[in-house]
Amino acid sequence: MPKIKHFLSLKDFSKDEILRIVDTSVRIKENFLNGSKIQPYFKDKTLAMIFEKSSTRTRISFEIGAYQLGGMALFLSNKEIQLGRGESIKDTARVISSMADMIMIRTFDHSRLEEFSSFSSKAVINGLSNEYHPTQLIADYMTMLECGIGVAESKYLNLKKPIVCYIGDGNNMAHSWLMLSSKLGFELRIATPKGFEVDSGILNLALDFAKSSGAVINITNNPKDAAKDANVITTDTWVSMGQEEGKEEKIKQFSGFCVDSSIMNLGNNAIFLHCLPAYRGYEVSDEVIESSSSKVFIEAENRLHAHKGIIVFLEEENWKK
Amino acid sequence: MPKIKHFLSLKDFSKDEILRIVDTSVRIKENFLNGSKIQPYFKDKTLAMIFEKSSTRTRISFEIGAYQLGGMALFLSNKEIQLGRGESIKDTARVISSMADMIMIRTFDHSRLEEFSSFSSKAVINGLSNEYHPTQLIADYMTMLECGIGVAESKYLNLKKPIVCYIGDGNNMAHSWLMLSSKLGFELRIATPKGFEVDSGILNLALDFAKSSGAVINITNNPKDAAKDANVITTDTWVSMGQEEGKEEKIKQFSGFCVDSSIMNLGNNAIFLHCLPAYRGYEVSDEVIESSSSKVFIEAENRLHAHKGIIVFLEEENWKK
Amino acid sequence: MPKIKHFLSLKDFSKDEILRIVDTSVRIKENFLNGSKIQPYFKDKTLAMIFEKSSTRTRISFEIGAYQLGGMALFLSNKEIQLGRGESIKDTARVISSMADMIMIRTFDHSRLEEFSSFSSKAVINGLSNEYHPTQLIADYMTMLECGIGVAESKYLNLKKPIVCYIGDGNNMAHSWLMLSSKLGFELRIATPKGFEVDSGILNLALDFAKSSGAVINITNNPKDAAKDANVITTDTWVSMGQEEGKEEKIKQFSGFCVDSSIMNLGNNAIFLHCLPAYRGYEVSDEVIESSSSKVFIEAENRLHAHKGIIVFLEEENWKK
Repeated sequence: MPKIKHFLSLKDFSKDEILRIVDTSVRIKENFLNGSKIQPYFKDKTLAMIFEKSSTRTRISFEIGAYQLGGMALFLSNKEIQLGRGESIKDTARVISSMADMIMIRTFDHSRLEEFSSFSSKAVINGLSNEYHPTQLIADYMTMLECGIGVAESKYLNLKKPIVCYIGDGNNMAHSWLMLSSKLGFELRIATPKGFEVDSGILNLALDFAKSSGAVINITNNPKDAAKDANVITTDTWVSMGQEEGKEEKIKQFSGFCVDSSIMNLGNNAIFLHCLPAYRGYEVSDEVIESSSSKVFIEAENRLHAHKGIIVFLEEENWKK
Repeated sequence: MPKIKHFLSLKDFSKDEILRIVDTSVRIKENFLNGSKIQPYFKDKTLAMIFEKSSTRTRISFEIGAYQLGGMALFLSNKEIQLGRGESIKDTARVISSMADMIMIRTFDHSRLEEFSSFSSKAVINGLSNEYHPTQLIADYMTMLECGIGVAESKYLNLKKPIVCYIGDGNNMAHSWLMLSSKLGFELRIATPKGFEVDSGILNLALDFAKSSGAVINITNNPKDAAKDANVITTDTWVSMGQEEGKEEKIKQFSGFCVDSSIMNLGNNAIFLHCLPAYRGYEVSDEVIESSSSKVFIEAENRLHAHKGIIVFLEEENWKK
Repeated sequence: MPKIKHFLSLKDFSKDEILRIVDTSVRIKENFLNGSKIQPYFKDKTLAMIFEKSSTRTRISFEIGAYQLGGMALFLSNKEIQLGRGESIKDTARVISSMADMIMIRTFDHSRLEEFSSFSSKAVINGLSNEYHPTQLIADYMTMLECGIGVAESKYLNLKKPIVCYIGDGNNMAHSWLMLSSKLGFELRIATPKGFEVDSGILNLALDFAKSSGAVINITNNPKDAAKDANVITTDTWVSMGQEEGKEEKIKQFSGFCVDSSIMNLGNNAIFLHCLPAYRGYEVSDEVIESSSSKVFIEAENRLHAHKGIIVFLEEENWKK
C-alpha cells in the first residue's frame, strides 16, 4: 500500500502545499461563480463522512462540495457509527476505506484521527478534532485574500501583510491559527483569559515552525494589546458543543474578551472572522458581526469551496502523481 | 439581493400560479410515466431539507424528486440542526442559502419559516408547519384532476366542479384546504367537533379570498351535513406527531367523525383522500381506505411529482425570468 | 401488478439463481477493478434503505453500490421510520414502493420483511433479519471463489470442493450458511454450544433441500470435530446489537468456541471468514483475524460488489424479462 497523504492538521503541510490548497480553492470558487457549478475533479467518487459530533456547516459544505466535484458524499452520524465502540478503529478504517474513496471525520481526540488514518487505504480529512480544525483555516485564509490580506505571492498583488488577532478560548481554532501563521510566516497574537491558554505543546511546535517561516507569535491575556493594528480580528464560541458544563462560570472568566466595536476600533481597518455558530453578546457583539467589517458569511460560503480545494489537493497528491 | 419567491402557504399565491404549479406537476408525471425518469429542471442543483419533525413521505418524495430533476437533496434531521437553538435562525438561513440552491423546511410554528425565508437568498419550501401543509394540497388537487374533478380550465375537459368535504381536526390540513378552495373558487365544507374548529384568523383570510374567487365555504360541527353531495371527502389523523398527550380524551371528542361507509354514501360518488399516515378505526374505517373510492395511494405517489412541480415553479420564478 | 421477485432469503432461490447472482457480482468487481467505476445497471433509479437496526457495512456498501450502478440510495433510520408503528406495514410498503425503485430493509422479525414485500410493487432486499442475512452469503461465496473454493462450475477451473465449518451462535449467519450449503450442495458443519443450536425449522428446511442438492450437513456441539479438514472456517459475534442483556453469562457458555490458531490448524489450509464486526478474544483470536488465512477485509470489500450483483439480478428478473 502506497503512503497516503491525509489532511489532519496544517502541521503536516509545507507553506507551498497550504498555498496550493488555497489557490485551488480560489480557482474552484472563481469557476463556480463563472457558471461551472460542477467541476468533476472527484467524478464518480465517494466521500464517507463520519460525524461523531454533529455539524451543520461542515456537513453541508462537504456533502454539496463532493457533489459539485462530480462525486457523492455519504453521511454517517454517531447513531450509525461510533469509532472504536463495538468495532476497533483499525477494522473500521480498513473496511470503510475499502469501499469509499475518501473519508472525512469529525471526532473528539485527534489521536482517533491519527489511528484511523494509519489503517486507511484512502485519504482522511479532519473535519474537526479537539485539537485542530484545519479545513476552517483554508476558508479563513481564502477570505483574507479576498479582502486583500495575505503573505506575499506574485499572483496576488498588493496584499497587506496579515496581522491576525485571535481573542478568546485557547481551543482548536486558536491552535489552527498557530499552525497557519507559523507555516505561512505571518504575525499572530492570541489573547485568552488566564487559565484558557493554548496547549503548550502545540504552541512550542508553532514557535519551532516560526523559526524558519519568520512568523511572529505573541501570546497574551490582554485582548486590547492583541487587537492593536491588527487587520484580521477573529474569535470563536466560548462554549463548544458537548462542553456546556460549567458554562456560566466560564462566561464570567471571559469578561472583557467579547469582540465589540471598542476592540474592532483598535485594529487597522480590520476585518472580523468567526467560524460560526456565533453567540451574540458573548464572544462577539451583534453590532460587530452585522457590520460591514464582518466577513463571516463570506467565510462560511468559502468553506464550500475550501473543502472542494482540499479534496482536489488530496486526489492530486495520492492518485495523480 | 433580488426578492425571492418562496413556497410557504397557498395564501401567497394567485389562482393562476397555483394552477401553473399543478399543471407543471401533471406534465412532469406524464413525462415520467412515458419513460422520462430524469427531467433535469434542477440539474446540478442541491436541495437542503431541514426536518425538525420526522417524516417518511415528504422526505422520500423530495429526496427522490430532487434526484429525478437532475439534482441532489441533502437531509438534515433535528439531530443535525435545530433552528434557532445554538444559532439564530437568521444566521442559519444566511449560511445554508449561501451553499444550497433551495431549502425545504418541516417545522413547528409557521413564523419560523417566515423568519428563515426573510434571510434566505434561495427559495424556501414549507414541508409542513403547524399552520399549513401546502405541498400536500398540490398533490391532492392533482389527484382530483385525475379523477375528473376540478375548477373549469380549457385544457381539462368535462371536469366536475369540486365540492370538497373535510371531516376532522381543524388543523394545518383544514387550513390548507381553506386556502386552496378560497383561491381556486370551489365549494368547501369543514366539519370539526366542537372545540376543534379551524383557526379563526385563517378562516377570515379564506373568506376574504372567497369574495373574489367565488368560493363557498361552510363550517359546521355536523359531518353528515358536510358530506352530502360532496365529490371529495377527506380527513386527517386526529393525533399528529408530537401531540400524543391527551390522545384518549381527544379520540372520545371525535366520536362520530370517522369517515366510514355511511359518510361516504352521503357523497356524490365521492373519492376519498388522506395525506397519510392513516389510523384505521379512528379518522377513517378500513373499509373506506381500502375501497375503490379511496385514492390515497395515488395521492401519495403524486406527492413525488407535485414536489418536482413546486421545485420547477420556484426555479422558473426566481432564476429563469 | 406482476409478481415481483424479492431477495429475502436464499431459501427462495435455486442453485442456478444463486450462482448467477454470484457470477454477476464477480463480473462487476472485475470490471470495477479494471477501471469501470460506474456500471449503470441501475441508472437513474433509487434504492430506499430502511434501517430499523443500525449498520455500517450494509449501509455504506448499498449506498455506494447503488451510486456505482448509476443510481441513488436514500437512507431511512429508525428515527425516520419504524415499520408498523404509526403506520401499518402494508401502507408503508405501498407508499414507498410507489416512489422508490427498490427497497432494502434491515429489521428484526423476518415476518416483517415478508409482510412488507407482499404489499410492495418493487423488489425488496433483506439487509439482515433475525433469521437470515443472505446478502452477506453472496459476498462470502465470492470470497471463497477468489480463494479457489467452490462447487464445480465449468467457468471456474480447479475449484476445491467446499467444506465449511461455522463455529459459534446458531443465529442468522448459521441459518444463512445452512441455506447456501443446502442449495449449492456442499458440506457444512455447524458447531454451537449446547442451548445455542440453529432453529430446528430452518435446519429441517435445509435438510430437505440437501436431499436434492447432495449437501452434507452436520450439527455438533464440538468445534474441533467441526473444524477438522475444513477449508473454510467462519464464525460470528456472540452478542449481536440489541442483544447485550445477559452478555456475560453468554460469553461463559461459549467458552471453547473461540476460533483461535488451534482451531484453524485443524482445518485443511483453511481460510477464515467473518462478517464483522469482530470481537477479538471472544469469537476469534487477534492472531487468527490478522493472519494471512484471514480474508475478512476482502470479504467486507466484496459486500460492495455482491450488493451490486443482487440489485442487478433483481432488475433483470423483474424488469428486463
